[in-house]
Amino acid sequence: MTAPLKAIDSSADLAALMGDLARAARAAARTLALSSTEQKNRALDAMARAIRADSASILAANAEDVAEAKSGGANAAFLDRLSLTAKRVEVMAEGLEIIRDIPDPVGAVTERWTRPNGMTIERVRVPLGVVGVIFESRPNVAADAGSLCLKAGNAVILRGGSESFRSCRAIHAALTQGLREANLPEAAITLVPTRDRAAVGLMLAGLSGNIDVIVPRGGKSLVARVQSEARVPVFAHLEGLCHVYVDGAANPEMARSIVLNSKLRRTGVCGAAETLLIDRAAWAQLKPLVQTLIDAGCEVRGDAATQAVDARVKRATDEDWDTEYLDSIIAVKVVDGLDGAIAHIDQHGSHHTDTIVTDDPDHAQRFLSEIDSAIVLHNASTQFADGGEFGFGAEIGIATGKFHARGPVGAEQLTSFKYRIHGTGQTRP
Amino acid sequence: MTAPLKAIDSSADLAALMGDLARAARAAARTLALSSTEQKNRALDAMARAIRADSASILAANAEDVAEAKSGGANAAFLDRLSLTAKRVEVMAEGLEIIRDIPDPVGAVTERWTRPNGMTIERVRVPLGVVGVIFESRPNVAADAGSLCLKAGNAVILRGGSESFRSCRAIHAALTQGLREANLPEAAITLVPTRDRAAVGLMLAGLSGNIDVIVPRGGKSLVARVQSEARVPVFAHLEGLCHVYVDGAANPEMARSIVLNSKLRRTGVCGAAETLLIDRAAWAQLKPLVQTLIDAGCEVRGDAATQAVDARVKRATDEDWDTEYLDSIIAVKVVDGLDGAIAHIDQHGSHHTDTIVTDDPDHAQRFLSEIDSAIVLHNASTQFADGGEFGFGAEIGIATGKFHARGPVGAEQLTSFKYRIHGTGQTRP
Repeated sequence: MTAPLKAIDSSADLAALMGDLARAARAAARTLALSSTEQKNRALDAMARAIRADSASILAANAEDVAEAKSGGANAAFLDRLSLTAKRVEVMAEGLEIIRDIPDPVGAVTERWTRPNGMTIERVRVPLGVVGVIFESRPNVAADAGSLCLKAGNAVILRGGSESFRSCRAIHAALTQGLREANLPEAAITLVPTRDRAAVGLMLAGLSGNIDVIVPRGGKSLVARVQSEARVPVFAHLEGLCHVYVDGAANPEMARSIVLNSKLRRTGVCGAAETLLIDRAAWAQLKPLVQTLIDAGCEVRGDAATQAVDARVKRATDEDWDTEYLDSIIAVKVVDGLDGAIAHIDQHGSHHTDTIVTDDPDHAQRFLSEIDSAIVLHNASTQFADGGEFGFGAEIGIATGKFHARGPVGAEQLTSFKYRIHGTGQTRP
Repeated sequence: MTAPLKAIDSSADLAALMGDLARAARAAARTLALSSTEQKNRALDAMARAIRADSASILAANAEDVAEAKSGGANAAFLDRLSLTAKRVEVMAEGLEIIRDIPDPVGAVTERWTRPNGMTIERVRVPLGVVGVIFESRPNVAADAGSLCLKAGNAVILRGGSESFRSCRAIHAALTQGLREANLPEAAITLVPTRDRAAVGLMLAGLSGNIDVIVPRGGKSLVARVQSEARVPVFAHLEGLCHVYVDGAANPEMARSIVLNSKLRRTGVCGAAETLLIDRAAWAQLKPLVQTLIDAGCEVRGDAATQAVDARVKRATDEDWDTEYLDSIIAVKVVDGLDGAIAHIDQHGSHHTDTIVTDDPDHAQRFLSEIDSAIVLHNASTQFADGGEFGFGAEIGIATGKFHARGPVGAEQLTSFKYRIHGTGQTRP
């Protein structure tokens, strides 16, 4: 059912293949940009059906990938990311239906005004063009990212990890089936049909202007490489070094619940807190937070004051303030009030997500203004840093840059805009 | 009054100097981001006063630049762009007052919604950071671009053409005076204090992450260099190859006035039309447009049908369809209706500004949807492609890319955004 693996004999062959794919994607993007919401939704619906119908072949392909990875000595976490189950395939199909049901951003008029000469100017959303998605072992990204790009009217070129190659091909076959049923060009969702790692470098160079933006999905080393090499815009975050600042004016019980949730609800997500900052002014009341964390199974690495609370606290090194643990470990520091917290986050944060717990509205307002992060919260957990929690339905990732998209990148952020001007013969004096 | 010219003895010295400037600009950007509208407006007001008060010294500095350019053999057009007059200095001061009076984009809440769990999410505008502006001979760009960046809360590093160096220094001294009076950091508006052309390359490389976006202001060769070399985002258009399509269903009188205005109101602006496309179906009624253009002093280069109208029409070569004349010359082609026009613009356009003249609303709607340009108009002149005509008050340029800013780049497009979340103790289940 899946396309045959292309034989790539040389780097010139690969460059030619990638060039062809990219030109076809550009042409498909033109068609998609003018496709109706109904047609795109019909494709998404058919894709969900095809994913379910192909479940057995997707799982069989995945079993081959997993067996190869196992024999190559992959660790348990890697194998978990790579492995599909009947349930995970069903979640993928449901994801396609969720994206089918979110509003189509394309064509939405976001502003409209009339000039003194009677011309009406509209700002209207249009697709971005061709999105390149470079991901690692999770094969579901092919369906999730491919479908979200489609909803926003963009063509997408998917390059999955070589370990998940067979799984991605099987999933891609189902997506292609959906495009065919809706009479949309198959090049709208292209999977790079080779495991050759040099394909990534070609994508990062932009394929002669035929890739408009790159979205990396994977670990820090992938994102770092993409950010340093890409010659086109990138939507990404390198890390989520998220902070909880518990202010002197915090409600201690609320602080306890927000700290535990921010750190421990899921430790491996980018919105998980990594550092807890506590206001020196209320240290006496707040220091039980340290024991609470330890009792909940979290390793605490702290400054001298924190160490004094409990013998199980390890001394934090300079490196701890800059470490995204993605694990049940937290760095804890006593700071001199709001100014100390802001200075610490300014120096060590990653502009991702930070929260303040306080009952003082002025402190909250200053924190929300002065912390230069994509998402700033007051009296809420950092774990809300997620497009689903924002109500976006789906996201392709979280961006910490300030250009174009920032925070959770949903369908709207995958569009650009144009100005439509309606006149009645106006000329400029 | 102006700062002394820094002595730059080596490329290492230059790199150190530019690094220092950029770090100071970054620090100033942090201060500016939190400055009140009132404080920024106070600076803009003081700048306008200082420009007027310094008019004599600005004109004297400019006279030196002009004399040097003349002795170097600069042509008349170049000298006109370089030259300041008392009137042009006054226009600069008035420009500062206009920017003082436009709304401050920073802090504006563009969206606000409440989640089922009671959290309120706000999307709020924040400054971008540090803008690098690279311009050529027009010294007024220092005031125009510097002040617009300031209004949007950004620091700016200005690098003017070496021919306008003395003029820019004199203008910059007045801007600095305004910053001082409002107690804002002087590094908020930095002029590169050397004529060394290597400074441009350093800016394009991003100065170690301390320049967030580059705006080139000048001719095509400058923009082309910036677009190809910059390692940071660029807001620019390479050229404005704007089209007027006169549909078969056009009102001939309206077509006449829009064609003449689009081409000839000002021929040197990027929104000037360069190509006229005429629907074959109404060629008999519309061909007098050719004589009208010639009678108005415009050279016409046309296809065979156009040549048949008037002996003064030169035969258009393939190159003509891709040429931005910026002069009283127009290329004219008869096309097969709307599809022919769209295909021609798709192949030859520069995604800047294109207009359709028609009384058929379906044709208008298709043109506005299918033409992939920043600005698309129906029954109005292409010469409206200008931030002032959009009601933006001022613009730093017109962008044809699809990322972040598109079309006229006003104060709002010089901002990013963040998400502010207001909770009451919410944690994620």
